[in-house]
Amino acid sequence: AWYIELWGHYIVATPPGARTEVKTPVKAVVELKTDYQLVSREWKRDPTPVFIGDREVREGKVFIIAGPCSVEGEEQIISTALAVKEAGAHALRGGAFKPRTSPYAFQGLGEAGLKLLAKAREATGLPVTTELMDPEDLPLVAKYADAIQVGARNMQNFTLLKKLGRAGKPILLKRGFGNTVEEWLLAGEYVALHGNGGVVFVERGIRTFDRTLRFTLDVGAIAYVKQHTHLPVIGDPSHPAGDRRYVIPLALAILAAGADGLIVEVHPDPDKAWSDAKQQLTFDQFRELMAKARELARALGKEFP
Amino acid sequence: AWYIELWGHYIVATPPGARTEVKTPVKAVVELKTDYQLVSREWKRDPTPVFIGDREVREGKVFIIAGPCSVEGEEQIISTALAVKEAGAHALRGGAFKPRTSPYAFQGLGEAGLKLLAKAREATGLPVTTELMDPEDLPLVAKYADAIQVGARNMQNFTLLKKLGRAGKPILLKRGFGNTVEEWLLAGEYVALHGNGGVVFVERGIRTFDRTLRFTLDVGAIAYVKQHTHLPVIGDPSHPAGDRRYVIPLALAILAAGADGLIVEVHPDPDKAWSDAKQQLTFDQFRELMAKARELARALGKEFP
Amino acid sequence: AWYIELWGHYIVATPPGARTEVKTPVKAVVELKTDYQLVSREWKRDPTPVFIGDREVREGKVFIIAGPCSVEGEEQIISTALAVKEAGAHALRGGAFKPRTSPYAFQGLGEAGLKLLAKAREATGLPVTTELMDPEDLPLVAKYADAIQVGARNMQNFTLLKKLGRAGKPILLKRGFGNTVEEWLLAGEYVALHGNGGVVFVERGIRTFDRTLRFTLDVGAIAYVKQHTHLPVIGDPSHPAGDRRYVIPLALAILAAGADGLIVEVHPDPDKAWSDAKQQLTFDQFRELMAKARELARALGKEFP
Amino acid sequence: AWYIELWGHYIVATPPGARTEVKTPVKAVVELKTDYQLVSREWKRDPTPVFIGDREVREGKVFIIAGPCSVEGEEQIISTALAVKEAGAHALRGGAFKPRTSPYAFQGLGEAGLKLLAKAREATGLPVTTELMDPEDLPLVAKYADAIQVGARNMQNFTLLKKLGRAGKPILLKRGFGNTVEEWLLAGEYVALHGNGGVVFVERGIRTFDRTLRFTLDVGAIAYVKQHTHLPVIGDPSHPAGDRRYVIPLALAILAAGADGLIVEVHPDPDKAWSDAKQQLTFDQFRELMAKARELARALGKEFP
Repeated sequence: AWYIELWGHYIVATPPGARTEVKTPVKAVVELKTDYQLVSREWKRDPTPVFIGDREVREGKVFIIAGPCSVEGEEQIISTALAVKEAGAHALRGGAFKPRTSPYAFQGLGEAGLKLLAKAREATGLPVTTELMDPEDLPLVAKYADAIQVGARNMQNFTLLKKLGRAGKPILLKRGFGNTVEEWLLAGEYVALHGNGGVVFVERGIRTFDRTLRFTLDVGAIAYVKQHTHLPVIGDPSHPAGDRRYVIPLALAILAAGADGLIVEVHPDPDKAWSDAKQQLTFDQFRELMAKARELARALGKEFP
Repeated sequence: AWYIELWGHYIVATPPGARTEVKTPVKAVVELKTDYQLVSREWKRDPTPVFIGDREVREGKVFIIAGPCSVEGEEQIISTALAVKEAGAHALRGGAFKPRTSPYAFQGLGEAGLKLLAKAREATGLPVTTELMDPEDLPLVAKYADAIQVGARNMQNFTLLKKLGRAGKPILLKRGFGNTVEEWLLAGEYVALHGNGGVVFVERGIRTFDRTLRFTLDVGAIAYVKQHTHLPVIGDPSHPAGDRRYVIPLALAILAAGADGLIVEVHPDPDKAWSDAKQQLTFDQFRELMAKARELARALGKEFP
Repeated sequence: AWYIELWGHYIVATPPGARTEVKTPVKAVVELKTDYQLVSREWKRDPTPVFIGDREVREGKVFIIAGPCSVEGEEQIISTALAVKEAGAHALRGGAFKPRTSPYAFQGLGEAGLKLLAKAREATGLPVTTELMDPEDLPLVAKYADAIQVGARNMQNFTLLKKLGRAGKPILLKRGFGNTVEEWLLAGEYVALHGNGGVVFVERGIRTFDRTLRFTLDVGAIAYVKQHTHLPVIGDPSHPAGDRRYVIPLALAILAAGADGLIVEVHPDPDKAWSDAKQQLTFDQFRELMAKARELARALGKEFP
Repeated sequence: AWYIELWGHYIVATPPGARTEVKTPVKAVVELKTDYQLVSREWKRDPTPVFIGDREVREGKVFIIAGPCSVEGEEQIISTALAVKEAGAHALRGGAFKPRTSPYAFQGLGEAGLKLLAKAREATGLPVTTELMDPEDLPLVAKYADAIQVGARNMQNFTLLKKLGRAGKPILLKRGFGNTVEEWLLAGEYVALHGNGGVVFVERGIRTFDRTLRFTLDVGAIAYVKQHTHLPVIGDPSHPAGDRRYVIPLALAILAAGADGLIVEVHPDPDKAWSDAKQQLTFDQFRELMAKARELARALGKEFP
């Protein structure tokens, strides 16, 4: 049997067939199978909000995380933080540890990047989110970040997922580009079962035979997951677009499909960015996106604080 | 050299290297390559409207085609036509010739189905659209239908595409579920080059490794094609959803991604439908979709007549 | 009920629930579902040979069809026919009607090409196979060809499949690059149910996210289909390779996976070919392939006449 | 600049544009781009053998690794080791740390499993290979294993790849089921650039729209990678088959496509296996595979010691 505290309950997970004596206010997970349960809406009906800093990601509301692909320097991250804050973003993103396909590509500023993110938080009040790659860096990243991103390539890094169960910070769990929806929900189940109920699912496009855009954004997965989990679901329009000309329509499609927010790449001078140069929005484009997203939220009956 | 009249111009298409003498008001396509040209927005800047009956599918407006997967009988098609008309649909769809994966499945009512569609048009004033499978049936289908659908499985049936160049009716060209965006545009080029400029592109989902829903709706393709063709682009949320619970969010995502309309399956009693029973909307669900689509159109700054 | 003569039996196909009186030597298909049956090995245990001209494609033997992508002229097709015959091929392929993604690409010589194929047959004794695209051309193609190819893009052109049921010639049924194995078997079922039991299944690669080679050859499909149908299965290494450097290893993999033969593109001067220039083998390469295939057949315990 | 000793050379890797003074016997990598280089056959022409224990995986030879999916107990692993050795296998595989999609599934015996593998090595003389998931477990796994497997889900776990550069043991690098061939080669480049030249590439099937078998074995990738890297390439027929009825044809296809060996799952009583029950071969089936592989190797002109 397995004991966890989640969402205000003390839970005992028992293997199939086991008898377990439990006491109030315990909520027992009986007859565990290999399916996802803790993250399912069948198991927990009411939507679960997740707090990033003091801000809430939850159903019925639009939550916008914006910022550069990589933290590149103080001026870059501070100016971006100020710009996205003014345009209405609710959190700042920025990569300090970068998963790069080639070992020769820029791998991120590391702790120096984390410190700059913390400075940007001080300057703007925006909570910050950043990716963790190496489980050994968890204490370091948890010290600076308000939410920890799991990248697409690590969605089934089960060692990492288990450790994030004890991270004490909310997790933005990106879907792997080669992973099914069920595997994504089970990755969330790993984090929850190991003690962390603050999981936000992030759809960011999958690999398909069509490579017209960088990835195929799967809005059907958003529609499906919204109906099957009580946890928040957001979408990343930047990676599937791969080109800033397509980011705004994809962002609006994500919200119209029912997502609870966006995580989007913004850079002061995208063409000079050290990574993902083609797909990051300029400040002007981000303001345009925010204006349109606000109109859309109204049409969908959602708050956009 | 190849002579066609399209979009108010008399066009001469010449192979690479050929010299051709042309006179005003001829617009010459010089140096044909194997890329799409006639359908490209580079070649023709202003958006081209396509008329289905007396109604216009065009940029800046939302056009809704609704109706059952298959025409099953008079009461079924007339009641559906009345219901979708009252809810605000602009055209009626209904299959008389059905492409079925199994030779043992219901193959459509054929001409009897076409006659019922014509009756439904009389009863409601809605123009009707239906699929053509056999090139030999073109005169028959063109006699009854206001627009001719090319199904996903026939998107690269080049024999059919060439004949549709002389159909004298607009074409709803569904994207093949195994076809790239470029192939889809080139299929439209086939129809245009053979003389028919009334092509509406229809995204309806592709095959990917994820089979959670029936197909993966590719909203990125909608965003891309809208920027690369002057012809209208609409989306089909029913086939990718495969289940009516997901049709409305997919329909809204299609519109938010920039499509000029929807083609959606509606049935008086979906569970008893002879084909696609799971994915057809009830009348109530269709009314809900229309109300939401109307709100969305307003947010997107589009007409919804 | 439906009456067909197939594989030496007179068969009555009845819809589910129907009562049908049948007499010897009728073999009744009772309770038709939407699954494939006639082509299944469950329904007919012993392997069915298919005759192309006077030569047999069947289990336990390796059958090689070789020739150019397109028939381009008399010298080209005759010289290729002589070369592949001498190297040991059992039939000649050559396209006269070409399905091309672009309407501007070479569409084949048409009937002139068919006549050249017939000349090549006279010159070598090799039976010839060619693709049919337009159902209206069936009498023409059937007049010249010993077997009719259905291209990948037409695998679910049900109009064509039904007409091929009455073609009186064997069918080489290529798998669509976006189609599942079950759909492929059901396409064969269409042909059989409409009266033609001479179907050879041809695996030629599918579309996947990986575009390193032109298509992903699916040897698993060969292994699976060999166990589930009594009809022959062969493979096309040229289209998945897309580049002649990879054709030989793919051809050997096809045979090792259990296929009953190959259909492979060969051209006297591939770099100057009017279509598929990169992937056609030279005569030398074809001889190398044949020598290796012969060794492999011996290791696999198969005849290679 | 970066200094590594690989394949008998002392190498200096320099960023593009940098000037570096190097001395004999240094082999300088000049003008690094983001492409793979160290693992490319262009950069190093002669094939590189990789030693697992005292046995060599190399071009021109067939190397067979066999054993259960998971180590389940002493009798299971010892009996399997004896059986596969007698049948001619060259190494034993067995999972002690198991990456499982569900957190509720059996996660492996951990160190106890490693100890049993070592016992099996003592009993048979076969070198052993096992998967490493958590970088923290590297010293532990390296202590017991003769080669370390990187699972498909960890192919782009760059943290792990970098640490394996200093593992002092050869790496079996499985291709991720959602990864392109180029990403796979670059993952190998990560390991090499961090100091470990003993990389064996393992193709094990990718995710495609067709789910007839568990994964789609990509023999085209084997053919391609064999021509583009100097390092050995082997194939895993068990995971793409997903069912033991298809393992043997897939294994033969892997070898015929040019692979240097196989890694295959074998279990004393597969139906009772704790993981991958359907796809593991019985001892009898493994002997049948070995007999056929031996015949095939002869036809292909390869050693099979």
